[in-house]
Amino acid sequence: MAPIVRVQNFMLSRDGFGSGEGQSLERPFGHADPAVLAGWMLATAHWPGRPEPGGTYGLDDYFTRDFANHVGAEIMGRNKFGPQRGPWEDHDWRGWWGDEPPFHTPVFVLTHHERPSFALGDTTFHFLEATPEDALARAMEAADGKDVRIGGGVATVREFLEADLIDTLHVVVVPTELGRGERLWHGPEDLLGRFHHEQVPSPSGVVHHLFWRR
Amino acid sequence: MAPIVRVQNFMLSRDGFGSGEGQSLERPFGHADPAVLAGWMLATAHWPGRPEPGGTYGLDDYFTRDFANHVGAEIMGRNKFGPQRGPWEDHDWRGWWGDEPPFHTPVFVLTHHERPSFALGDTTFHFLEATPEDALARAMEAADGKDVRIGGGVATVREFLEADLIDTLHVVVVPTELGRGERLWHGPEDLLGRFHHEQVPSPSGVVHHLFWRR
Repeated sequence: MAPIVRVQNFMLSRDGFGSGEGQSLERPFGHADPAVLAGWMLATAHWPGRPEPGGTYGLDDYFTRDFANHVGAEIMGRNKFGPQRGPWEDHDWRGWWGDEPPFHTPVFVLTHHERPSFALGDTTFHFLEATPEDALARAMEAADGKDVRIGGGVATVREFLEADLIDTLHVVVVPTELGRGERLWHGPEDLLGRFHHEQVPSPSGVVHHLFWRR
Repeated sequence: MAPIVRVQNFMLSRDGFGSGEGQSLERPFGHADPAVLAGWMLATAHWPGRPEPGGTYGLDDYFTRDFANHVGAEIMGRNKFGPQRGPWEDHDWRGWWGDEPPFHTPVFVLTHHERPSFALGDTTFHFLEATPEDALARAMEAADGKDVRIGGGVATVREFLEADLIDTLHVVVVPTELGRGERLWHGPEDLLGRFHHEQVPSPSGVVHHLFWRR
């Protein structure tokens, strides 16, 4: 399979928000509760953060474990790396993903304020001021024949959608309302012009939306 | 994740048959049409036999591409290797999987008539007269930390179910009736005593059944 550009396990509230308002160091998703957005994943057997064996092997688990399959690099926006705005003031702070980030590949962080690359576990963060096209070219090269995941947040996914660079999307709609924050869509019909669409309700209550290029 | 024992992408008619009656060299599934049983998979982007790029990236594709993920060995019954019964008469005939079998791992063929191992592409076939427990021990060792797939056919899946050696099953029920042949179940309720169950209808018309140990 030729490598593709994927949005994977991207979580939205029923009203279309990927994160709430008021991002801060303590609240990466603003007023949204990440445990509510990610609850479907936290229940599965393959959630990497699971403290002990157990968890479900149903539909949600297929998506959870597909997160890393055949992915060779991720591109994310700066706000998925940390809450800072403007020039970096503290290079010792290395993102809110901990000492073993769940990416395990090169990660390209889009920012107007570059800083030196560094590795945490088997994830390497690179900081890049670049157009979506140029960032993707870098990520594709680093992915070495595997896929590139567009990791979010909402602004980054929108930017790559607008540049028509995304081949497939997996969006998880969670039965909660956020009312305000970063909005991806008013509904999946926003994307139907360019993508095929399947909607798969999970017994857990979330709905998996799958899109692929027409 | 500790390795598990999986049945994966196992196809059944709506009346519970995995293959028809009258297996022969020309008709591996007897009177059943394999293109009907496997149609859901043949339409997907990740079907390995796809002659050119294309195909769907919806729900069915997730299952198609999960076939090989984290699988390190397969165990199959003799009738999945070939139609012969009794002692082998022709060692030059090397199974109906072609020069590049789709397994890409060691495959253990259960038979009362052993024969020398051989490799085709990156698949190696071993022939074993063994209990399910002993065959699984061999396959687990060969899988080297990855999962073991119980590949079928029906008799082999039933044997491993009876020995309580299966951790998860993915069964695809196809909207066709066979009436006779090798029957796995009268319905998914046959397995509910020992397994959790989710039933996921696909837009293609098949229904994916997911089971995992209670």
